[in-house]
Amino acid sequence: MSNCIVAQSGGPTSVINATVAGVVKGNQMNPIYEHVYGGLNGIEGILAERFVDLTNMTEEENRTLQQTPSSALGSCRYKLKRDNVEDFEKLLAIMEKHDIETLFYIGGNDSMDTVAALSEYAAKHDITDRRFIGCPKTVDNDLMHTDHCPGFGSAAKFIATTALQTWLDVNVYPSSRQEVLILETMGRDAGWLAASSCLSGKVDVLVLPEEPFDKDVFLKRVKECIDDKSKCYVVVSEGARYADGTYISAGESKNDLFGHAVLGGAGEALKAIILDSGVAGRCKVQDLSTAQRCHATEQSLPDRTEAYRLGLSAHMHSADKSFTGKMIGVKRREGQKYDVEYITIDADKVANYVKHFPTEWILPEYRGISEEAFAYLRPLIEGTPYITYKDGLPAYVQPYYMR
Amino acid sequence: MSNCIVAQSGGPTSVINATVAGVVKGNQMNPIYEHVYGGLNGIEGILAERFVDLTNMTEEENRTLQQTPSSALGSCRYKLKRDNVEDFEKLLAIMEKHDIETLFYIGGNDSMDTVAALSEYAAKHDITDRRFIGCPKTVDNDLMHTDHCPGFGSAAKFIATTALQTWLDVNVYPSSRQEVLILETMGRDAGWLAASSCLSGKVDVLVLPEEPFDKDVFLKRVKECIDDKSKCYVVVSEGARYADGTYISAGESKNDLFGHAVLGGAGEALKAIILDSGVAGRCKVQDLSTAQRCHATEQSLPDRTEAYRLGLSAHMHSADKSFTGKMIGVKRREGQKYDVEYITIDADKVANYVKHFPTEWILPEYRGISEEAFAYLRPLIEGTPYITYKDGLPAYVQPYYMR
Repeated sequence: MSNCIVAQSGGPTSVINATVAGVVKGNQMNPIYEHVYGGLNGIEGILAERFVDLTNMTEEENRTLQQTPSSALGSCRYKLKRDNVEDFEKLLAIMEKHDIETLFYIGGNDSMDTVAALSEYAAKHDITDRRFIGCPKTVDNDLMHTDHCPGFGSAAKFIATTALQTWLDVNVYPSSRQEVLILETMGRDAGWLAASSCLSGKVDVLVLPEEPFDKDVFLKRVKECIDDKSKCYVVVSEGARYADGTYISAGESKNDLFGHAVLGGAGEALKAIILDSGVAGRCKVQDLSTAQRCHATEQSLPDRTEAYRLGLSAHMHSADKSFTGKMIGVKRREGQKYDVEYITIDADKVANYVKHFPTEWILPEYRGISEEAFAYLRPLIEGTPYITYKDGLPAYVQPYYMR
Repeated sequence: MSNCIVAQSGGPTSVINATVAGVVKGNQMNPIYEHVYGGLNGIEGILAERFVDLTNMTEEENRTLQQTPSSALGSCRYKLKRDNVEDFEKLLAIMEKHDIETLFYIGGNDSMDTVAALSEYAAKHDITDRRFIGCPKTVDNDLMHTDHCPGFGSAAKFIATTALQTWLDVNVYPSSRQEVLILETMGRDAGWLAASSCLSGKVDVLVLPEEPFDKDVFLKRVKECIDDKSKCYVVVSEGARYADGTYISAGESKNDLFGHAVLGGAGEALKAIILDSGVAGRCKVQDLSTAQRCHATEQSLPDRTEAYRLGLSAHMHSADKSFTGKMIGVKRREGQKYDVEYITIDADKVANYVKHFPTEWILPEYRGISEEAFAYLRPLIEGTPYITYKDGLPAYVQPYYMR
């Protein structure tokens, strides 16, 4: 019996560990591998042979792992470059040395590119006994060919809950007090997270990256709300931009190691626009920042369940010795009641593409999202799993990279 | 039988409505008043005779009200000035007109001043049939003569939970990546909220308003953490200041209507200090802003219970016809197991004072808080009440000021 390894990459989510838990439990239920290793800090740690053995994880630890946010195995932003043959050779040598047949890589866009690149490299060099399988995770929900991404539902639920609660907060003062609250969410290229705030039913103005930002139309809409009820609730995605592609937060943007723009400040930019125009007397910004991707005490039940089952599914699929270069995805079943099945997708069809929020789901003049969008989003936040606590705080597993 | 009125003032909390629910339920269990009115938007709305009748609130609505954050009756920042005799006369005339014997005013410092001023005015003018009772609420926990304030425990719990979760998030990348996360909390004058983050056990550096900010000591401590483990978790109160009293966020401060400094940006200020000094390569700020005072899906169980019982207690005390100008407070009972009793305090002993976080509970060099502080804080976040949901989001009552 050979071994497998599971690792995590990119920005964490609040259910990313549920997928690890699924792979581990899958192998306990139906042993395909002798050992299930956890690779620490993604590809970067695997290249340094930093492993832990997860094979015999207890049921209790497995459950606690599922409610622990952020990557318990650690993460990395290290990208295998296709021309960096040295890294490929080293990784394959390490897998051979430890008799690791399968690498399960949990991540987003870039991780699926890693999965695709590794399986291509293996195929090209007639290496048939090393396999690479991708498991999606991203709060951004921007991966192609999967109905949605594990991690999105929980972040969406936290955002919608926070929108509801802060909407209640911003409305408490009398109508003599004009007030705009701007909630800024993550979402560099895709507006899924910002759009999910509309589930609260309280969003007056929604600014997404998918629609060019028009200052005049925006201010007209804010003014309309202020004139009507003296309060206005705005939600903006960090990636909102003008027609020429300039981010509205442009003054503060810079690039990360992958050449992605590191954003922040779209809310502050809108605040300046509102206060400069004089359409409202007060304006506050709530930037949800990191909290939105690691708030795990209110995980979405389907999100957590699906992240776990996706791990089970990836493990099960790997029983097929020809299964490599694939990502496991979810497909929404037809019918009234929400349910999904797990599907497989070529990783190279996912890597480096972005699934945008459909422009036909965006209402004109920043008025929010269509009924179709609501129908898509609603089931993804329904239900909360039972969370265990210790001393008033959620119980979590000590990160493996700290042990 | 005469009537009573309950109203809310100042910044809302996530359990402020539980106190309203307590007053209403108290009168249903033991009717002292014919009607329990809710005054909309505090004193400001009462002066405009904007009332709702809460007398016959259903049990279901009462329960939902208790889990609804922010002031369901609306709030105000209107302060009765002691020389504004016109307002006093008008208020007393309105109470007489509607046969309102008792006003329960739920609020912080300024509201206790209102309670004290009104009862003094009544005494001075031999008005014995109008009474004024204060119920504390403030996330800041800075009211004197009460062990702690309703609203604080839930905000503390959210902050500690968020500190734990974002600490997990900031640590996922390998040690080659230096990273500082700065969590900014509310707390203009008192560091209670910032200090509560230490319950997570993860705070490396804690900056409170009670201790003059020393840039060099601060940077030395951050550098120590970065050298040791390449990550550093900082928590700062919005009100942190230099020895000369200048807020560290001074560049961005301005005053509100009461002359209080409106703060924000202490986190950004620390970030600039860290990046300028070069002690760490990366630094991110998470400003919890409004969310920390209205996040109600994880209310602290003792906080919510006590807010409710405090309402019951205020109602019960008001059976005594001479009871006026008082605030209900909580006193921690002696003994191993946490428990409280409800006490009464002269409102003028609370108004316009601030209870600071004890400096003897602050560890040197921003290293956090003492065991005594932990012993004080821990029981205040223990347990979470059962929260009901609707369509994936917490159920709440429609604010009365919107009906």
